[in-house]
Amino acid sequence: MPELPTPHLLIVGGGFAGLWAARALARAPVRITLLDRGNHHLFQPLLYQVATAGLSSPDIAAPLRHILRRQKNVTVLMGEATAVDAEGKRVALADGDALEYDFLLLASGANHAYFGHDDWAAHAPGLKTLDDALLIRRKILSAFERAEASMDEAERRALLTFAIVGGGPTGVELAGTLAEIARHTLKREFRRIDPRHARVLLLEAGPRILSNFPESLSAKAQRQLEKLGVEVRAGSAVTRIDAEGLNLGEDRIATRTVLWAAGVAASPLARSLGVPLDRAGRVRVQPDLSVPGHPQVFVAGDLATLQQDNGKPVPGVAPAAKQMGNHVAATILGRLSGRASQAFRYRDWGNLATIGRRAAIVDLGKLRFSGFLAWSFWLVAHIFFLIGFRNRIVVLLDWAMAYWTYQRNARIIVGRDD
Amino acid sequence: MPELPTPHLLIVGGGFAGLWAARALARAPVRITLLDRGNHHLFQPLLYQVATAGLSSPDIAAPLRHILRRQKNVTVLMGEATAVDAEGKRVALADGDALEYDFLLLASGANHAYFGHDDWAAHAPGLKTLDDALLIRRKILSAFERAEASMDEAERRALLTFAIVGGGPTGVELAGTLAEIARHTLKREFRRIDPRHARVLLLEAGPRILSNFPESLSAKAQRQLEKLGVEVRAGSAVTRIDAEGLNLGEDRIATRTVLWAAGVAASPLARSLGVPLDRAGRVRVQPDLSVPGHPQVFVAGDLATLQQDNGKPVPGVAPAAKQMGNHVAATILGRLSGRASQAFRYRDWGNLATIGRRAAIVDLGKLRFSGFLAWSFWLVAHIFFLIGFRNRIVVLLDWAMAYWTYQRNARIIVGRDD
Repeated sequence: MPELPTPHLLIVGGGFAGLWAARALARAPVRITLLDRGNHHLFQPLLYQVATAGLSSPDIAAPLRHILRRQKNVTVLMGEATAVDAEGKRVALADGDALEYDFLLLASGANHAYFGHDDWAAHAPGLKTLDDALLIRRKILSAFERAEASMDEAERRALLTFAIVGGGPTGVELAGTLAEIARHTLKREFRRIDPRHARVLLLEAGPRILSNFPESLSAKAQRQLEKLGVEVRAGSAVTRIDAEGLNLGEDRIATRTVLWAAGVAASPLARSLGVPLDRAGRVRVQPDLSVPGHPQVFVAGDLATLQQDNGKPVPGVAPAAKQMGNHVAATILGRLSGRASQAFRYRDWGNLATIGRRAAIVDLGKLRFSGFLAWSFWLVAHIFFLIGFRNRIVVLLDWAMAYWTYQRNARIIVGRDD
Repeated sequence: MPELPTPHLLIVGGGFAGLWAARALARAPVRITLLDRGNHHLFQPLLYQVATAGLSSPDIAAPLRHILRRQKNVTVLMGEATAVDAEGKRVALADGDALEYDFLLLASGANHAYFGHDDWAAHAPGLKTLDDALLIRRKILSAFERAEASMDEAERRALLTFAIVGGGPTGVELAGTLAEIARHTLKREFRRIDPRHARVLLLEAGPRILSNFPESLSAKAQRQLEKLGVEVRAGSAVTRIDAEGLNLGEDRIATRTVLWAAGVAASPLARSLGVPLDRAGRVRVQPDLSVPGHPQVFVAGDLATLQQDNGKPVPGVAPAAKQMGNHVAATILGRLSGRASQAFRYRDWGNLATIGRRAAIVDLGKLRFSGFLAWSFWLVAHIFFLIGFRNRIVVLLDWAMAYWTYQRNARIIVGRDD
């Protein structure tokens, strides 16, 4: 598009990487198109709260075009990118149209991966989008409802057994919160069942949960989970999931609710680039986050994989995605004024995981702590990073009420199972 | 069930009629089962606010078992009643089970009716449940998104044309709020379209909108709507609705968003009773709200029709449903102590309709007013009747913010079109 005065940057994905890149270019001589499949930016760290009925969807999401309304160099479009033509500098869309670009940032994130067991997807939903969260919320709440209505003792037990596959941060959050719901939130509301007898299992194939934390903290997290009533089974690889339950090797567990927090895979868009991917489908980016052979194409966030100097990959967490988005913006600005690209360096501020009411672990490198203090630290950090003034107030209010009353305010079943 | 010490009342439907009946029997020697298809009581008067992205689902809904948690004589069950066997005193459920009763209250409400044009349902959703509201929200927000992405001028115009069929209170609320969204909420957020050019049509087959109000108020409402930018067309009967638009007799209007607020029909459950129904499928109840020939079966709320002394039917509004629920509770209590049934009398406190920001009409019989005062009156009345302490605070906060900023906090697209 040589007749256009300013170069055109196309950003695919309005998550942390894409949105932060767009914002960092607010005053740059770049025309930006931000394309996303949905109409909103999602504060993914609190998505498990929607799945467990603590928050409602609008509490943790804001329309992308509202966030960017004052940034006049950005056009937000809702649509789905299906393939990149890196030679022709075009991205094909699902509706048949195509968008041209001078610079491209792919930041469309990751999806659940079932390690070759795609049939498990129907029985064990994962948690990446608001629709996933509403589906999981419906499954959890409906299981208690169906148990109350059931006349069959074995069916009731299966309905009151909840299995979470994957002992990373999401699995731990879901397990801890589910135990809390059963033990406290619902305890006096049923007449035929006692929700406190619900069984919550956290299944991890590796030797310990939260393996990205130091061993001492991961052991503390396990003890906190067990105190909440969660059965933690590390070293337990799931070998089968069906509508009636799951298998752990020889062991069979009857359950009607299996949640998947075990594996993610990059969005299929990466394949169309024709560049090296890792096993999870992530693009192996250059040190400046560009793609080998296509310096004007960048990949950031969960869709990218890059080894740090310490040999470990940059983790798939929100702060890394934001830093990558900012780095791509700086690189594009540099290119426009003829400066050479810099290598991306992940600045690790620390690692947090929350477990439940008053329970969390924090690893700030030298400083490690757990329990109530860690939980308060986590709470403040997450409220602070929530986008939008109203959201912060409403979320705080919801949490304050939930804390004092043990209630969860979004216990509403919407949608239907297919 | 002669071995049970207390008679069993089965209530089908946890709306205003069913819930108020259950509450009124809190201290009565009755065992109550409250059956509902969903898990929540819905504050239906504010449902249009969820459909138009002003409130989120949990703001206007609360789990039935939470509302009734302290009332130990109530068991809440989620399930769907499919047929009544009035001779055998049993209600069949969709899952194959059945529930026996000594007293039965049918209060399962109304559904949209398309007057013999069932194919219109796919193109013109109505507004009765939270799922309906989320579908309408998705349709409205997606229309603006698709208009921004479209390169075709005629398609854009059709996407920015919104038609609401039916000039009753729901149609008026939807039209007024939609005009407000286009004119104010979205005005600076798009780059290729100007949402202020959106066309909002309110189509009413009868001679005037809000025909249950006096003519002077209904004319005032029309002027207020027109000031907000709504085109009101009374005397306009829709003769066709398809995926591309609708016909008003000879007139064709290209639109991608048609909302149905024109007709309701009683739930099919009523037919299985084998008693006289009116044209809309409502049960013609006896003066004490029982069913002819089955004195232990009652019908209340939108599923019932009863002529008042003034010759008009009891209106299908929330206060009437609550009063009917209370009356059925009193009648059952009376029967248990051998007293004769009393005739139900609807106490009409007045009639309110809201139109948009600072616009409403109020008819209290002798006292009639409109505009800002009417809107304030409507706001206070609705906040006051919202169930649950948290909801009131959060809804007030949302509204205060929305009022000052013109923003709507639930502009999140969830779910997918089939």
